[in-house]
Amino acid sequence: MNLKVIFYIQGIILKFEAAFLMLPCIVAFIYRERQGLVYLVLALLCLAAGTLMTRRKPGNMTIYATEGLLSVAFAWILLSLTGAVPFVLTGDIPRYIDAVFETASGFTTTGASILTDVGALTKSGLFWRSFTHWIGGMGVIVFVLAIMPMMGGYNMHLMRAESPGPTVGKLVPKMRDSAKLLYIIYLALTLAETIILFITGLPLFDALTISFGSAGTGGFAVRSSGMADYSILSQAVIAVFIVMFGINFNFYYLIRGKDRKQAFKMTEVKGYLILIAVSVAAITADLLFYHTYLNPGRALHEAFFQVGSIITTTGFATADFNVWPSLSKSILLILMFIGACAGSTGGGFKVSRVLILAKSFKQEVIRLLHPRSVITVKMDGKALDKETVRQVAVYAAVYIGVFVASFLLINVFEEHDMETTFSAVTACYNNIGPGFSLVGPMANYSFLSVPAKLILIFDMLAGRLELYPILILFVPEVWTKAKKQAAEDAARRKRYRGGAV
Amino acid sequence: MNLKVIFYIQGIILKFEAAFLMLPCIVAFIYRERQGLVYLVLALLCLAAGTLMTRRKPGNMTIYATEGLLSVAFAWILLSLTGAVPFVLTGDIPRYIDAVFETASGFTTTGASILTDVGALTKSGLFWRSFTHWIGGMGVIVFVLAIMPMMGGYNMHLMRAESPGPTVGKLVPKMRDSAKLLYIIYLALTLAETIILFITGLPLFDALTISFGSAGTGGFAVRSSGMADYSILSQAVIAVFIVMFGINFNFYYLIRGKDRKQAFKMTEVKGYLILIAVSVAAITADLLFYHTYLNPGRALHEAFFQVGSIITTTGFATADFNVWPSLSKSILLILMFIGACAGSTGGGFKVSRVLILAKSFKQEVIRLLHPRSVITVKMDGKALDKETVRQVAVYAAVYIGVFVASFLLINVFEEHDMETTFSAVTACYNNIGPGFSLVGPMANYSFLSVPAKLILIFDMLAGRLELYPILILFVPEVWTKAKKQAAEDAARRKRYRGGAV
Repeated sequence: MNLKVIFYIQGIILKFEAAFLMLPCIVAFIYRERQGLVYLVLALLCLAAGTLMTRRKPGNMTIYATEGLLSVAFAWILLSLTGAVPFVLTGDIPRYIDAVFETASGFTTTGASILTDVGALTKSGLFWRSFTHWIGGMGVIVFVLAIMPMMGGYNMHLMRAESPGPTVGKLVPKMRDSAKLLYIIYLALTLAETIILFITGLPLFDALTISFGSAGTGGFAVRSSGMADYSILSQAVIAVFIVMFGINFNFYYLIRGKDRKQAFKMTEVKGYLILIAVSVAAITADLLFYHTYLNPGRALHEAFFQVGSIITTTGFATADFNVWPSLSKSILLILMFIGACAGSTGGGFKVSRVLILAKSFKQEVIRLLHPRSVITVKMDGKALDKETVRQVAVYAAVYIGVFVASFLLINVFEEHDMETTFSAVTACYNNIGPGFSLVGPMANYSFLSVPAKLILIFDMLAGRLELYPILILFVPEVWTKAKKQAAEDAARRKRYRGGAV
Repeated sequence: MNLKVIFYIQGIILKFEAAFLMLPCIVAFIYRERQGLVYLVLALLCLAAGTLMTRRKPGNMTIYATEGLLSVAFAWILLSLTGAVPFVLTGDIPRYIDAVFETASGFTTTGASILTDVGALTKSGLFWRSFTHWIGGMGVIVFVLAIMPMMGGYNMHLMRAESPGPTVGKLVPKMRDSAKLLYIIYLALTLAETIILFITGLPLFDALTISFGSAGTGGFAVRSSGMADYSILSQAVIAVFIVMFGINFNFYYLIRGKDRKQAFKMTEVKGYLILIAVSVAAITADLLFYHTYLNPGRALHEAFFQVGSIITTTGFATADFNVWPSLSKSILLILMFIGACAGSTGGGFKVSRVLILAKSFKQEVIRLLHPRSVITVKMDGKALDKETVRQVAVYAAVYIGVFVASFLLINVFEEHDMETTFSAVTACYNNIGPGFSLVGPMANYSFLSVPAKLILIFDMLAGRLELYPILILFVPEVWTKAKKQAAEDAARRKRYRGGAV
């Protein structure tokens, strides 16, 4: 195992974090918040540590799957642990575990909060909190790859480990171009949303932070009222943008080029939009039937906002959907698991995986009825191959396994109604944020015990990184290998020094 | 499609039902219940209809997968619809929809009841109700196959369609011997339980009906108090037998022969017993920690009974586990989904399927860490093949799909807390019986609307028959094919008659 390259990558990540931290520093300067100095100090520390760690480029830059997964896992844990420090030092979030929860929730674009009063935070704190969504949405590693030409042809393993969905990396053949392109689309859409929100009447600060939150499909609000303060028009703009960020970015790539038709043929995007339309229609009907809203327009608006917010795993809330009738709640619960498109910034199980499994069922039924025929079920116009189905199926099994384990483990430490624990795990694991009952959209996660918070942090990371990078940390073989490698490296260094003397 | 043979099989089923109905008739005679005549009348009607339908044996007795699935689906629906009639006529359950719910719940070994006071039923009614568990546990078709040498080498498709688990039919090569052997083991164990329960002090009627309920892992009680009236010793006997009926019957076959060692190597049985042990330990600790029971022995007893009852999807209750602490409840919830061993009378997803998916994950991790090595993960000493994994994975996807659809659909018609609807579907779909909250072990399903009851009946049948036989009824192609075939048959008959004239 190439430990040096993993270490080296962590150094790069720290240097990038230094750059990221300068932004809240500027915000602090604008709003004359003295505590903002904390961001500057931490940025300098990150820069120093990062420079030290990257001082010598490893001779061997080879990255295989294991190194890729571990680099990504460590990078995200490192970001969560260090990114939490300013919250404690500025006094925004006094307890470190809470700050880590909030930061992990930010980077993983979950949006689950332990804050009881968001409005009490410093502007720089609010900005940093929302900015973590933006970074985490597209991915730190993807960002690194977009900026620097790092290491030969092996970046694929890195990017694959971080990006959501079963079919990543086929965007354009060249990794770096691909990463750059992703960030350009991402940046352009975010800017567009900021400008439009500003025009519809949001203060610039709100427009920017809410755009970060929607772009990353994160969900942190900057007001205690959530989204409820904003005009219906602004809310609608946010909802539309959220839905756009939940679409596979491949779509935006294709739509720009000659293959425009190809974009509209994407099975997943179609499925995603149909799912949204059906859910909105059903929830609107349900809300009107139970007189939750008397005005059909209002019911449609709330249904659309909440469906968009939940299926993309953003988690913004304009209304307390916890008190909605049970059909609406159960549709939202199912959408929480399905999640957005692969290759978008959204979390969850992903629409494409649901479609692949549904199609493999269709295949099975055909096989049953016509045992002697050759069956091809198609996805995006191409035949669905067995290996993809197998991978998705295994992913589904692991996905459920981790969910069940977390749910049981939380219940060891917490004693609440089933809806609370079940939806807390659902909301963190799928990177949504608000759940139901005690962790509903008008509540928060502060009341949970430290072990419960740690489990949920694990869930957020596992969900965002699509399980394998985080789960590999629990495979003993990885650690024994790493130890052996570390010992070998040390021995070699000793020999080298001996020779030099 | 061979419609004639499907029709013919339904006739056979009716004749067998006539025989089954004679038993409650005898019970009625013993307890001098006049209403019991109803069973006799219905038995005669079934016999008449069955004889008419089997009067002419179809020339072509070929059964392919489609015919097998349809025969099984229709047989179970027919049994539920006709088996419900006596309840209405004797006045035990006045509403037909409720009677069908109760009968389907009986045959599918679910044990979910719409009765508010079980004690008020006639003895013959109680007996019939419990007897449906016994028939449904091992399967009607299996019973038919055990008794009569029916139709060439194609019975495999029939038996496969009815028996639970992914690896059915490898018990012994010859179908009929296999079916017979299954029923002999089944009968022997049931008798053993009846005798032991009788010795521990249960009245003979209770001993017999409770044994039916445990053998089929059904769950209908014959007293309003459930199992609570019986002594701790009797309860313990029931618990042990329940756990035995949840074991793959292959185990009992192997343990009798020379390959005794082979029996103890069965991965699934080991997994099943370990799962029970771990769950009992955790729940006992939880019950003691929260002072639900003060006596450790009592806590262990209740934990063992309930774990056994739930994992085997029986659903007997000695205690109101709905008020247990949340860890215990959540463990029970997970066990509800896992279910018993394949090839047992239990329902649920089956331990073997869980193990196959877990092993395929292990395989995936090894593949990730050692991309160039050849990996074999073993099950029962044999390498796990890809086709099995694929089938299990597709089954899992369909299983979840049906669950989600039912859950959403119930919410269209019912307005309850999420725990109620979620656990109602869980309990019916996995053939358990009691759920949580409003459908907890001390409650019943009577308050639900007719559409909700119909959905749950569908779930019970789909769960018991492992989806495909029931789902195939919703494939339009099957119906168009059947229509076409029916028209062809009619035309041929006409031609034949024309020729004769």
